[in-house]
Amino acid sequence: MAIQTENLSIQNKGLEEVCAELDTLFPSMVAIRRHLHQHPELSHQEVATPKYIADYYRELGLEVREGVGGRGVVAKFEAQDPLKTIAFRADFDALPIQDQKEVPYKSTVPNVMHACGHDGHTAALMVFAKSLVNHAEHIRQNVVFIHQFGEEEYPGGAQAMIEDGCLDGVDAVYGCHLQSTMPAGVIFYKEGFIQAAVDTFTITINGKGGHGAIPHETVDPIVTASHIVTALQSIVSRNTDPLKQLVISVGSINSGKANNVIPTEAVMTGTIRSYEPEVRTLAAERLTGIATQVAQALGAQADVVIDKGYDALWNHPEETLLAKRAIERVLGAEAVAETPSVMPGEDFSYYTQHVPGSFIFAGAQRENEQEVYPHHHAMFDFDEKAMLNTAKAFAAILFEYNETR
Amino acid sequence: MAIQTENLSIQNKGLEEVCAELDTLFPSMVAIRRHLHQHPELSHQEVATPKYIADYYRELGLEVREGVGGRGVVAKFEAQDPLKTIAFRADFDALPIQDQKEVPYKSTVPNVMHACGHDGHTAALMVFAKSLVNHAEHIRQNVVFIHQFGEEEYPGGAQAMIEDGCLDGVDAVYGCHLQSTMPAGVIFYKEGFIQAAVDTFTITINGKGGHGAIPHETVDPIVTASHIVTALQSIVSRNTDPLKQLVISVGSINSGKANNVIPTEAVMTGTIRSYEPEVRTLAAERLTGIATQVAQALGAQADVVIDKGYDALWNHPEETLLAKRAIERVLGAEAVAETPSVMPGEDFSYYTQHVPGSFIFAGAQRENEQEVYPHHHAMFDFDEKAMLNTAKAFAAILFEYNETR
Amino acid sequence: MAIQTENLSIQNKGLEEVCAELDTLFPSMVAIRRHLHQHPELSHQEVATPKYIADYYRELGLEVREGVGGRGVVAKFEAQDPLKTIAFRADFDALPIQDQKEVPYKSTVPNVMHACGHDGHTAALMVFAKSLVNHAEHIRQNVVFIHQFGEEEYPGGAQAMIEDGCLDGVDAVYGCHLQSTMPAGVIFYKEGFIQAAVDTFTITINGKGGHGAIPHETVDPIVTASHIVTALQSIVSRNTDPLKQLVISVGSINSGKANNVIPTEAVMTGTIRSYEPEVRTLAAERLTGIATQVAQALGAQADVVIDKGYDALWNHPEETLLAKRAIERVLGAEAVAETPSVMPGEDFSYYTQHVPGSFIFAGAQRENEQEVYPHHHAMFDFDEKAMLNTAKAFAAILFEYNETR
Amino acid sequence: MAIQTENLSIQNKGLEEVCAELDTLFPSMVAIRRHLHQHPELSHQEVATPKYIADYYRELGLEVREGVGGRGVVAKFEAQDPLKTIAFRADFDALPIQDQKEVPYKSTVPNVMHACGHDGHTAALMVFAKSLVNHAEHIRQNVVFIHQFGEEEYPGGAQAMIEDGCLDGVDAVYGCHLQSTMPAGVIFYKEGFIQAAVDTFTITINGKGGHGAIPHETVDPIVTASHIVTALQSIVSRNTDPLKQLVISVGSINSGKANNVIPTEAVMTGTIRSYEPEVRTLAAERLTGIATQVAQALGAQADVVIDKGYDALWNHPEETLLAKRAIERVLGAEAVAETPSVMPGEDFSYYTQHVPGSFIFAGAQRENEQEVYPHHHAMFDFDEKAMLNTAKAFAAILFEYNETR
Repeated sequence: MAIQTENLSIQNKGLEEVCAELDTLFPSMVAIRRHLHQHPELSHQEVATPKYIADYYRELGLEVREGVGGRGVVAKFEAQDPLKTIAFRADFDALPIQDQKEVPYKSTVPNVMHACGHDGHTAALMVFAKSLVNHAEHIRQNVVFIHQFGEEEYPGGAQAMIEDGCLDGVDAVYGCHLQSTMPAGVIFYKEGFIQAAVDTFTITINGKGGHGAIPHETVDPIVTASHIVTALQSIVSRNTDPLKQLVISVGSINSGKANNVIPTEAVMTGTIRSYEPEVRTLAAERLTGIATQVAQALGAQADVVIDKGYDALWNHPEETLLAKRAIERVLGAEAVAETPSVMPGEDFSYYTQHVPGSFIFAGAQRENEQEVYPHHHAMFDFDEKAMLNTAKAFAAILFEYNETR
Repeated sequence: MAIQTENLSIQNKGLEEVCAELDTLFPSMVAIRRHLHQHPELSHQEVATPKYIADYYRELGLEVREGVGGRGVVAKFEAQDPLKTIAFRADFDALPIQDQKEVPYKSTVPNVMHACGHDGHTAALMVFAKSLVNHAEHIRQNVVFIHQFGEEEYPGGAQAMIEDGCLDGVDAVYGCHLQSTMPAGVIFYKEGFIQAAVDTFTITINGKGGHGAIPHETVDPIVTASHIVTALQSIVSRNTDPLKQLVISVGSINSGKANNVIPTEAVMTGTIRSYEPEVRTLAAERLTGIATQVAQALGAQADVVIDKGYDALWNHPEETLLAKRAIERVLGAEAVAETPSVMPGEDFSYYTQHVPGSFIFAGAQRENEQEVYPHHHAMFDFDEKAMLNTAKAFAAILFEYNETR
Repeated sequence: MAIQTENLSIQNKGLEEVCAELDTLFPSMVAIRRHLHQHPELSHQEVATPKYIADYYRELGLEVREGVGGRGVVAKFEAQDPLKTIAFRADFDALPIQDQKEVPYKSTVPNVMHACGHDGHTAALMVFAKSLVNHAEHIRQNVVFIHQFGEEEYPGGAQAMIEDGCLDGVDAVYGCHLQSTMPAGVIFYKEGFIQAAVDTFTITINGKGGHGAIPHETVDPIVTASHIVTALQSIVSRNTDPLKQLVISVGSINSGKANNVIPTEAVMTGTIRSYEPEVRTLAAERLTGIATQVAQALGAQADVVIDKGYDALWNHPEETLLAKRAIERVLGAEAVAETPSVMPGEDFSYYTQHVPGSFIFAGAQRENEQEVYPHHHAMFDFDEKAMLNTAKAFAAILFEYNETR
Repeated sequence: MAIQTENLSIQNKGLEEVCAELDTLFPSMVAIRRHLHQHPELSHQEVATPKYIADYYRELGLEVREGVGGRGVVAKFEAQDPLKTIAFRADFDALPIQDQKEVPYKSTVPNVMHACGHDGHTAALMVFAKSLVNHAEHIRQNVVFIHQFGEEEYPGGAQAMIEDGCLDGVDAVYGCHLQSTMPAGVIFYKEGFIQAAVDTFTITINGKGGHGAIPHETVDPIVTASHIVTALQSIVSRNTDPLKQLVISVGSINSGKANNVIPTEAVMTGTIRSYEPEVRTLAAERLTGIATQVAQALGAQADVVIDKGYDALWNHPEETLLAKRAIERVLGAEAVAETPSVMPGEDFSYYTQHVPGSFIFAGAQRENEQEVYPHHHAMFDFDEKAMLNTAKAFAAILFEYNETR
């Protein structure tokens, strides 16, 4: 695929060459991805994968640091007279899912599977690095390749890697996630919050069971739960800045089996979605306060457990628009689209808390498939060309820095 | 009025004579009542009234104790070889109301008025005592005449007088209240609870006011109040024995004036009606708990004030049926009727907590009046014949003890 | 067991003889009960049982009507110059339960069992009839023996039998239920309502499911259900006469499985317990109205199904006190006790809607058993002496009519 | 005041001359404003004011159309070879308020007053027109001067004037509002929604009053209102797109006076603030549905009245940023600031629904005043220099079009 020269205000031979190189290297990208796909490792248990990655970078002659934040791998390309240092991140952990698809590259590990595309992220980033090394003379920025472990399982690997210095000296950071349900060939961007912080809660109401005919000898957990649910609505309607976003949804309530027995317990689970940290904190505090105190008011007791997910992921507007503009030049305007906020839970959020950056999606829906399987599905797979697009998008972003600043 | 001899299984010359004497003494009963009506004294401020009563009893030659429990007067008739000691109680305090009726016996004290009939109770009891003294040879029971102060104003005079011994040695106690809205000539009875305990409450919710467009900077007292009102319903529906009675009604809620300003405060008032002390206690505790803790749950604060009224008045079934039977014999079955629970607030309830007894009503509606004025109305008055009925009812009850036990 | 002659104000040779006869006939009572126990028949499927009963009465020489109201049997003893006609009722259907106890008289029918004591009711009534026939010279009342089918399964057999004339000419009706959890040797009575009408309800709320993060594209059935539950409380707290009884309990609520998915449906089940028909009607109407309209208010739809149980069972006070008095004379005052309202669902209620009557309990707890099994339990059994007590209680009631009126 | 030449990238002699002319004409601007201030006319009753305006434009030699949409005046300046047609709007109606301030230009009409600054808007626009006419050689755009009637009173004059063609051929439209509470010398802008649509509602709940002790004979409007308030919270928390804004606040609830009387009626008022029309419609529909149907569910009736205000006012981003940039060049960057959304109710919103445009605020707080009086206050006045700033801002915007496109 040729660079859209009509959009390219300044001729950029380097980018053209890198993209051509990526086209050439695509088979090796596929090979790496399939190797990883066959040998998946669970979050926070990765051993062979980071070694495989590190060996690759060493072979490229780049400086490599292993065990970053635990199990991460960070490689660095040093430019001559660099203007800036730009980081790209890919995650490499797999999921506890039994691979159900029949393909030659099917997972060889029972109940472990790359069902979210991290194998693709990894392969794209590795081969992107190789293409840069092969055209080092055109690269005017330092480039940091962040290979992250443990993204699928809270607390993730991002925070530990950042604490361990993976962003030191980095001016901007980018990441990309394949999306099996989005059209192949398209890259998606979004300024600002691209995804909410997703916390889940469980409220367990302990009342006192008894016969339905003698309510005064019981503490009714169903009536208590109902008052809690109605009162929870006021967190969004009354306690939240109307200009900010918050969703609190009770997804399940289960209590009792018999019509004539007042049960002892009611259990509710739900989800809290927020962006700003102060809204997130307020939601958790108010939810806990309402559940606990309304229960007390009605003579019951409520235990509230909130399982925190990752922080909301905020894309810096300037870096996002830079990426959009750069990718349009390479892939064409029709291959770039804005996305609404979709994907819950991504610890890339911590990177953009430290340095400017943006997270994009690469459409990877497989053509001619009868059914589209979502991420985390046992039949999950993706169009491998999306890896190539990812690498080209990264190249475009990197070269954009040559002329922008 | 002749005794209904067809109902009187055993000839009772004594009762016949006492009733005839009461007929004769009726003018003096009226005179006493009108004297008291012209010289009313407020609750807990009675001075002349108890002295007037005590002097009367001394003149009758009875033993009199003044200052009982503060301002009460207790006189005693001692029978020879008494079987039992029976007490009758009348209250003598007046109300802070300006008498508006134009009658010769209108109150001479500005803004003080016997607007509840206590003057009639007092006159009836005094003349009843005189009739007994005049026929002492027929009286086989000791009789205690309890003239009580302060009934209209909590905490009343009953409890203090009981503590000061007015019921010592008493086997049964009776009282009667004139009723200006019930048909004259009829005596009303009711077994068990004849009236509820009536407590009133005020819930003041303190939130934080602000502009209606920025609810997150406020604590909304209207939403808080609404959650409290809905939760209060569960006290009756869930916390109260279905076989017992409780009513909690919020009678007023007032908060805010402008549509676009969230007010600072919401005030609710209401009434709690109960019979059993444990239900009453539970209602107060639950109401306080719900208001306080639901308010806290929503970030507000609720102050709850409960103004306690007198205990529920419980008529002992045996004494009530004795009174019914006895009065039917004297006044005829058509002059006795059962009443539903009507009158709130009567500290006669404390007497029947200590000794068996019953409280009855004497219908006192004035004939040929265009309008019937209720108790505590500035135009209140009653048919004075009801005093005679009261005294005859007391006589009937007293003599019933001659044969019953 | 001898009649308590010290309590028997008037010598009653006939009652003494009948009771002695019952003592003698007790083994046949046990035999009948055990025969029935071995050959139980499900409600509304009874064939052999009514035939067995009818044959017995024919053998006694009494007039017998079969197929009454479907499957009922009614026999009649005609006295000479009868004062009144007194009916006694026993039910004879069994339950779909597999008998688990190991006794010689264990049920021979798989999954069918007399687990509620109806075999005992039937045997007691049959042998009671025989004892009367054997002492016909002392019997001054006509006696109707009502053997009812289908009590365990709504709509029961009582209403059909009454429509078919089983109460025609009857002045009073009595029934008795064995109680395996109440002390043997004691008969229990209660004036007025001895048991509530028990209706069950199911509320199915249909909302619109969706992702927990996009509530505006859903109709949340959990929030809807919660508002319904809180509003239901007002039926008892606001819509019901405080002097009457009503309980509405939601016994179960189940909706949703995942914390982050708003479910499509919420299902609640519960119980309504009332006494007066107007309260029962109001409860059903208000419950339906609140569920339906609150759901509409929130954009959802609620389907309400109310499964009606039998009417509340009201014991006429006069007949109840007659029974109490009569049974005390025969069994002794210590063998008679008042019961609170206990047993839900008994279609004897329809008999006392048509003629005066009373329903009593016969304590039948087995001695020396490690565990007491409740009715409808697969291990249910009872002390067979309770049948004898039942028959004697019926005899006492019958003879009480000789002298009372 | 000189043009900030350091900010002016391209020398613009025309704009400089117009601004100098405005400085010169300022006294006539004040004179016009004070004349109008002394002769205010109520909304939709304006007669002399539009005539006064039309005469002025006729005197300037411009084409004038009177009676536009009823009482509006539209004048037009035609440029030679115009690039675009730019409209500026000022409103000219007054308020039913008695002028309380003691100034020579005090209103001469009792109970009518320019208490919102429309006199200033009008004077600024008229003199701005004159300055353009005086420098016609520099003006490269057609300019439309829209003098609008009836802004203070719904449905306003904007919609009628637009229907009558006042925006025909217009490429962009601008308006300005003086703000007595914002610092003088500063112009305020805001991209996107600068103000919400503000609707007010009144919910009147009709229950059935009665004694607090007999709730079953009443329909309790306070319990009903409480359920409505709690259910209303779900409109924001459940029915509204979390990414959009909606506020529904109940500002007042008033029902009942006595603690022991259940009142007949409860009245609530509140405010609805929204931006997008579909959110606004949804809010009104859901509020009406919830109030009506929850009331029905509880046996009461709710009447809902929604008083609609003007649509939310949306400033087109491009035109807003053009205005900001242009005004900064003339007044300096320190004299331009972003404003949060402040002012409720402005029918300028309808102009930007038809053509691109922006609405700005001109700070007009008076110096050395002890107290700042808000708009619609009887003591309202403003710093008249703000009119000059308004006119210069309009000039800057107009000239910006010379170079921008």
